[in-house]
Amino acid sequence: MTSSQGEPAQGTGALHERPVGLVGLGLIGGSLGLDLQAAGLEVRALVHRERTAERARERQLANRIDTDPAVLQGCGLIVLALPLDRLLDPPTELLAALPREAVITDVGSVKRPVLERWEPLHPRFVASHPMAGTAEAGVEAGLRGLFASRPWVATPTASTAPAALALVQELAQAVRAQWLCCAAAAHDQAVALISHMPVLVSAALLEAADQGGQAAGAGALVRQLASSGFADTSRIGGGNPELGTLMARCNQGAVLEAIRQYRQQLGELEALVERNAWPALQQRLEHCQALRPEFL
Amino acid sequence: MTSSQGEPAQGTGALHERPVGLVGLGLIGGSLGLDLQAAGLEVRALVHRERTAERARERQLANRIDTDPAVLQGCGLIVLALPLDRLLDPPTELLAALPREAVITDVGSVKRPVLERWEPLHPRFVASHPMAGTAEAGVEAGLRGLFASRPWVATPTASTAPAALALVQELAQAVRAQWLCCAAAAHDQAVALISHMPVLVSAALLEAADQGGQAAGAGALVRQLASSGFADTSRIGGGNPELGTLMARCNQGAVLEAIRQYRQQLGELEALVERNAWPALQQRLEHCQALRPEFL
Repeated sequence: MTSSQGEPAQGTGALHERPVGLVGLGLIGGSLGLDLQAAGLEVRALVHRERTAERARERQLANRIDTDPAVLQGCGLIVLALPLDRLLDPPTELLAALPREAVITDVGSVKRPVLERWEPLHPRFVASHPMAGTAEAGVEAGLRGLFASRPWVATPTASTAPAALALVQELAQAVRAQWLCCAAAAHDQAVALISHMPVLVSAALLEAADQGGQAAGAGALVRQLASSGFADTSRIGGGNPELGTLMARCNQGAVLEAIRQYRQQLGELEALVERNAWPALQQRLEHCQALRPEFL
Repeated sequence: MTSSQGEPAQGTGALHERPVGLVGLGLIGGSLGLDLQAAGLEVRALVHRERTAERARERQLANRIDTDPAVLQGCGLIVLALPLDRLLDPPTELLAALPREAVITDVGSVKRPVLERWEPLHPRFVASHPMAGTAEAGVEAGLRGLFASRPWVATPTASTAPAALALVQELAQAVRAQWLCCAAAAHDQAVALISHMPVLVSAALLEAADQGGQAAGAGALVRQLASSGFADTSRIGGGNPELGTLMARCNQGAVLEAIRQYRQQLGELEALVERNAWPALQQRLEHCQALRPEFL
């Protein structure tokens, strides 16, 4: 794994030689469009619906915005800023419109299935994942500075061309992200542990409070007494349901393994409570208190 | 369950007739001392160590502060602002110093064991639980306004004197808390679900990310990629270990039942992922998204 702090765009690299193409102008695509234009790049975007194109033009999310895939011709780098399901099942007309000489990258939160699908489809595909987001989605969601100081992870393979990888790194640095490279499998396991599985852990908490409250005849009371701790712990479980489902679906193996790992830990804590093993429980919680800053 | 919004102190009730006593000047006791003095009440406090008394005097946490239990003589209402373990195992000299005619209340986060211990000990005991806090503890932790708009739950029993309960309600309203009454068993089950069990759920997440990351050879990567979602979900698991242990210990039955309830929900979500039941998973996550605002 390598890492380097993103620097502000210098405007001198290969990235500036030709327009950057964006496929999709939702939260990630729209935010990229705004930041890349601000960095002095020409940005061309392909969107699905004419209505989206109109609104995206009003918001000036790119210099040229069209529903015709021909808009991507001439681009040196094209970012597939599509939801995972559409990325894994790309329409034929999109594939036909991607220039063979362009570098293609994606922004999907799972990397192995994306590589399996896209490496055979395009000779200059680079898998990547900017780890930034908000609770918003769609053409209204894009905003300036979304990627600043956030990790942008690339997962190159033996067949990734170094020049193609360098171009994606330039893109990440143009939006002031923090560049990281790692193996796709390690990425998928890591995001299962720190992002995809926690959604289910947090969702189960909401359901347990609801169901357990009802079972105890305290459905109203649990709602009245829930405080900031519960609000924090339940936040991602109450987030975007489509996104949570897509993550579990596209990273199924790693998510199931992460849940297994999680159940193991919870089971051990539960056993300590059952056995009145209070000093041992306190030791485990002290370990957790020491662990958490490492993740912040 | 009854509820009423706390009003600012009026200075006209029985609470103002005699000094209020505090046993302990940590986060809860210290904050009470500051707010009650600001509401025009005379506050007398008993602390364990002379060093604590000195610092508490510097911070003006009460009008009179002493390590001699005699400081509580003459108080009409005494708040036992002690950690749960000391509350459940009170020293003989404290018991001897509590005036029989005073109303005694506590601030413990579990109510059934407190009632079992204290109802036989004092004729005018009222169990209560202000649901407010910060991550801090000790004589430096107390602060103004901690209880404002937060629930203050009382769990009266058949033997609770109405006048004693009313005095504690006056106290809660003097610090602008929101007054609630419910059965002790319902309180303990509710806090197990929304506060005590979630500590363990959140702690297990930290351990799973750590252990799972190591197992995948991605120990550094999980730390680099963890973002605000992980930070929120792991916050209470990385909190005060003594407090987390005490809650599990003093509310053991309800906490184990809440974990059982939680495991059931997580197991159901896991089964949906295993069975590729994506529309059903999305439906569950949509339900969670709708549930969460009810708890905020």
